[in-house]
Amino acid sequence: MRNIKLVIEYIGANYNGYQKQPKGKTIQGCLEKALQELFNEEITTYASGRTDAGVNALGQVVNFTTNATMPADKMAIAINHHLPGDIRVVSSEQVYMNFNSRFSAKSKTYIYKICTSEQLSVFDNKRYLHYPYPIDLELLKQACQKLVGKHDFSSFMSTGGPEKLSTIRTIYDAHVDIQDNYITFEITGNGFLYNMVRIIVGTILEIARGKKKLDVFEALYQGNCRNLAGKTVEPYALYLKQVNY
Amino acid sequence: MRNIKLVIEYIGANYNGYQKQPKGKTIQGCLEKALQELFNEEITTYASGRTDAGVNALGQVVNFTTNATMPADKMAIAINHHLPGDIRVVSSEQVYMNFNSRFSAKSKTYIYKICTSEQLSVFDNKRYLHYPYPIDLELLKQACQKLVGKHDFSSFMSTGGPEKLSTIRTIYDAHVDIQDNYITFEITGNGFLYNMVRIIVGTILEIARGKKKLDVFEALYQGNCRNLAGKTVEPYALYLKQVNY
Repeated sequence: MRNIKLVIEYIGANYNGYQKQPKGKTIQGCLEKALQELFNEEITTYASGRTDAGVNALGQVVNFTTNATMPADKMAIAINHHLPGDIRVVSSEQVYMNFNSRFSAKSKTYIYKICTSEQLSVFDNKRYLHYPYPIDLELLKQACQKLVGKHDFSSFMSTGGPEKLSTIRTIYDAHVDIQDNYITFEITGNGFLYNMVRIIVGTILEIARGKKKLDVFEALYQGNCRNLAGKTVEPYALYLKQVNY
Repeated sequence: MRNIKLVIEYIGANYNGYQKQPKGKTIQGCLEKALQELFNEEITTYASGRTDAGVNALGQVVNFTTNATMPADKMAIAINHHLPGDIRVVSSEQVYMNFNSRFSAKSKTYIYKICTSEQLSVFDNKRYLHYPYPIDLELLKQACQKLVGKHDFSSFMSTGGPEKLSTIRTIYDAHVDIQDNYITFEITGNGFLYNMVRIIVGTILEIARGKKKLDVFEALYQGNCRNLAGKTVEPYALYLKQVNY
């Protein structure tokens, strides 16, 4: 028995989220079906975490145990033959038996892509949030700084997520890369609550537009003030970039 | 009565080509439906040329005459409200009555996008030709040079296209831009035969892989040697970049 770690990427648009559901097409469902077809063995996969409906991944991590004898590094391409075009295994390797994609993870990095052009190219449609408003980039950068550190993020959490023992999370880094009208927000933390990144992005965009003040974070970090935070922005511009071990 | 010029972009994947057909969804069909909804008037559009099923455009040009009184520069956004997410009017302007998108055009520029990575990202799927083979970039550049000039391109034409009086075309420029594993081939000419760009790309890629010799062009330019040319590469990586007037 070996433990195999996969790095996978996917476009979330056509899926009802990562996690297997009784109804609806999911990333996990497609992946496990592909593994079963390839190895002729029922396989359960464990991901670093679920991603919501519509959310993308550049570097989701999944592990599973198998009796298959195929060399681990050959599995990526072999599995891809059984996957649809919007899910792909980027790499495969054998890891120690105790490795668990979720519990071994030290931090995760997400990016959120925004385009502020008056009009959005059809090629960026559903890949970028179209936000054609005047943005104060200096304020946006300052808002990113406010995110870094250990905070109670319960104000940045949607109801309906799985119950959490604690809503305190540590953000190691948050910054924006700006190229012409394209803004990429990148955030790394030890964990994220339900919809947390999307609510953070909604909040910092409203700050950068002057609709909220920078000091709103002080109230937000008191906890349980969802109404004070910005709206939950669209899922299709969110990408799980990597999981750090 | 005014003559309006539109620059439009579209993803060809979901369409049965540009030109209206008795059956199947087309770009022209969607555009004319949008214009009719907006202006409450039956409008016929004239494009610089058809693009085939699956082919994209960054700068297709279309013109039409109308009695509508809306300022021409406001039409782009207004029309977009009636178009699906994969077709978009980039700009709109009033032009002189004799302007005809097709007959006034001096040249057209196409690009073809290729990715030579071992694996293709899901985000590049159906936007790049996946060509994971060793390529001699020097040979590729030399092949581009062979294209420039006035030649009989009948060897680079698929059967089944509209009848042409002449198969002689002048190519003003052909070159490749290379960034890591991404190759963008760009070609500008006074006209292109049916599938001509896709057969040209198939041919120069086979030359760059060493499967054909550079001097194959001498035979090809004798005319009517379709079998000597390379295969017709996929439509989804071809983009009509701009029409030059």
